[in-house]
Amino acid sequence: MKPLEDYLIVDFSQFLSGPSASLRLADLGARVIKIEKPGTGDICRTLYTSDLIMNGESSVFHTINRNKESFAIDFKQPEELQKLKKLLAKADVVMHNFRPGVMERIGLSYEDVKNINSNVIYGSISGFGEHPDLKDLPGQDLLLQSLTALTWLSGNQEDGPVPMGLSIVDMLAGAHLAQGILAALYRKTTHNMGAQVQVSMLESAFDFQFETITTYFNDGGELPVRTKTNNAHAYLGAPYGIYKTKNGYLALAMGSIPVLASLLKCDALLAFPENKFTLRDEIKNILAEHLQTQETQFWLDILEPADIWCAGVLNYQQLFAEDGFKVLNFTQQVEMLDGYSYKTTRCPIKIDGEYLTSGKGSPKLGQDNEKIIKEFIDC
Amino acid sequence: MKPLEDYLIVDFSQFLSGPSASLRLADLGARVIKIEKPGTGDICRTLYTSDLIMNGESSVFHTINRNKESFAIDFKQPEELQKLKKLLAKADVVMHNFRPGVMERIGLSYEDVKNINSNVIYGSISGFGEHPDLKDLPGQDLLLQSLTALTWLSGNQEDGPVPMGLSIVDMLAGAHLAQGILAALYRKTTHNMGAQVQVSMLESAFDFQFETITTYFNDGGELPVRTKTNNAHAYLGAPYGIYKTKNGYLALAMGSIPVLASLLKCDALLAFPENKFTLRDEIKNILAEHLQTQETQFWLDILEPADIWCAGVLNYQQLFAEDGFKVLNFTQQVEMLDGYSYKTTRCPIKIDGEYLTSGKGSPKLGQDNEKIIKEFIDC
Repeated sequence: MKPLEDYLIVDFSQFLSGPSASLRLADLGARVIKIEKPGTGDICRTLYTSDLIMNGESSVFHTINRNKESFAIDFKQPEELQKLKKLLAKADVVMHNFRPGVMERIGLSYEDVKNINSNVIYGSISGFGEHPDLKDLPGQDLLLQSLTALTWLSGNQEDGPVPMGLSIVDMLAGAHLAQGILAALYRKTTHNMGAQVQVSMLESAFDFQFETITTYFNDGGELPVRTKTNNAHAYLGAPYGIYKTKNGYLALAMGSIPVLASLLKCDALLAFPENKFTLRDEIKNILAEHLQTQETQFWLDILEPADIWCAGVLNYQQLFAEDGFKVLNFTQQVEMLDGYSYKTTRCPIKIDGEYLTSGKGSPKLGQDNEKIIKEFIDC
Repeated sequence: MKPLEDYLIVDFSQFLSGPSASLRLADLGARVIKIEKPGTGDICRTLYTSDLIMNGESSVFHTINRNKESFAIDFKQPEELQKLKKLLAKADVVMHNFRPGVMERIGLSYEDVKNINSNVIYGSISGFGEHPDLKDLPGQDLLLQSLTALTWLSGNQEDGPVPMGLSIVDMLAGAHLAQGILAALYRKTTHNMGAQVQVSMLESAFDFQFETITTYFNDGGELPVRTKTNNAHAYLGAPYGIYKTKNGYLALAMGSIPVLASLLKCDALLAFPENKFTLRDEIKNILAEHLQTQETQFWLDILEPADIWCAGVLNYQQLFAEDGFKVLNFTQQVEMLDGYSYKTTRCPIKIDGEYLTSGKGSPKLGQDNEKIIKEFIDC
């Protein structure tokens, strides 16, 4: 059995951060009812990437909202709010990612929900937590990356700020909310207590940088410096980086410079002492020039048997063509209620040797209204 | 009370991925006993970043291992292994991140531990899960980024692969393991069942790309294309990116091009239709040129009142000098047993309005042996 079976989550959240948390809880077996505004629904339904429309809606929406139900209800209407409260009274978890004050104005603050469901777990993600100057700003991923200095860690020294090309802050905040809710759920079972669980994208972005921030604080407050070329981590020495070869690229993680020099027959590198941090630009330059002289596989054939931490650099076409990838069964085919079927990823967690999969696709707006009304409201 | 109080985790894991999971469980209130090899301990103790040594050990180790105990024991010796088993028999969770086969050879596989602790939750992180060709390779972050195509999402079109400058795959795998363990813990309480929870860095890296992979699969299998300049997400249209201004940088997330054109008084942009995806390079070029004509604050003063999603781009010095950051109290001072004290980050999750903090620093190797032997072994 999946760990969260028979467990009910009512999720008001939109876009990515909150919905990614409830997706994980759905993967783990919970029943997730997505609350949406009639007419438009989650704005993410029309947040297209690469202009791709799948069954009338965005690929982003379909990815994040598989395995959920949709209940469309205009809860700003007092009568509808009363109906919704009958559902909330039966939920194990209520969650949202509105800006501060929105749920309070609707009459669905933690206190309000606790009045009708005393042991509820009430989870929320805000953009900026209690930050006095920023707390009313939109919690958008790129803006969070920019405001938390994350953009100064990728790319090379002269590149200026380089954002990470995925919604990393959304996803981490979602992961943290899922952790907090799961821990609170355990406490609810053992101690019969509800909980309020709060996460902010701002603090999740700081937590992501826990190593670099701690290093910064204890290293005299000098700004992180990326290497001039082949940077992969501002605080790590050579060879850490990705290098061009004759026909592609080679990734090199930590490794002894003299050992590398001898394996690669790179004489210019032999003069360098064991990974001296201050010489990393020079070391990387020599390596970069030398590695261009042969193809990637040539270097891998030398380095892998010597247990050097190295790898080729794949793109999606190369990756998904691999037989090894197919063995993993990391993709799953899911189906919507109207029969539309699409290929997406599955949960990365395996429990008791089994992957947590489900063939249920994303919901059409309001598709589960009738069932939910019968089960929770008109009863 | 913290949710996981009175809950015992015995953690064999090293480096970053596993220890980041047990740090989160420690934050949530669990007691974490770190098992280390006498003499050297967790190799992370000497994995220096920026050559920084804090109280004889690396800043990375101190960051990830605060709020844990250390039990140094040579469990490859049969007698010592028997002692260790007395501790494992009392653990709620046993976890590790060794390469496949290591725990089996020692005699501490899931089956072995279940024999002495039938309801144990046994968690593990591997590099590559069941991948037939890669499963014996080292699970190192940069190599995982390279093998899972993650490096083709950041940077500009002509940059080649650009890694994310943080150990993102380690951290996500740690977050997923923590989620799986927490869910299993809930099921243990409700259904009196143990569990094996397995995560791989490979699958965590795929999960991180769930949106882009799903888009790729449903978009005809074309490789993601980053914009020529100002890229922040290969699949998003203009203006999404970071732009140079007269004195710094400005981040712009999603926004209507005609509205932006008129607010910024950028005539050249007025000719462009609403965010046409195929014109994103041209739009970004015009924006990039225009935004260099004024300082960052000038643009923010125009855009913020109009509710455009924008932000300045801070570095650590600017960020930590802000009064707003200080209000958040995101840093905490922790102290080691020998009195050495250092500043680091705290858990990003807030429960019942309280942050989960602890003043306990990282452990010296084997510092808790005596106490642990008395409490669990000689009893």
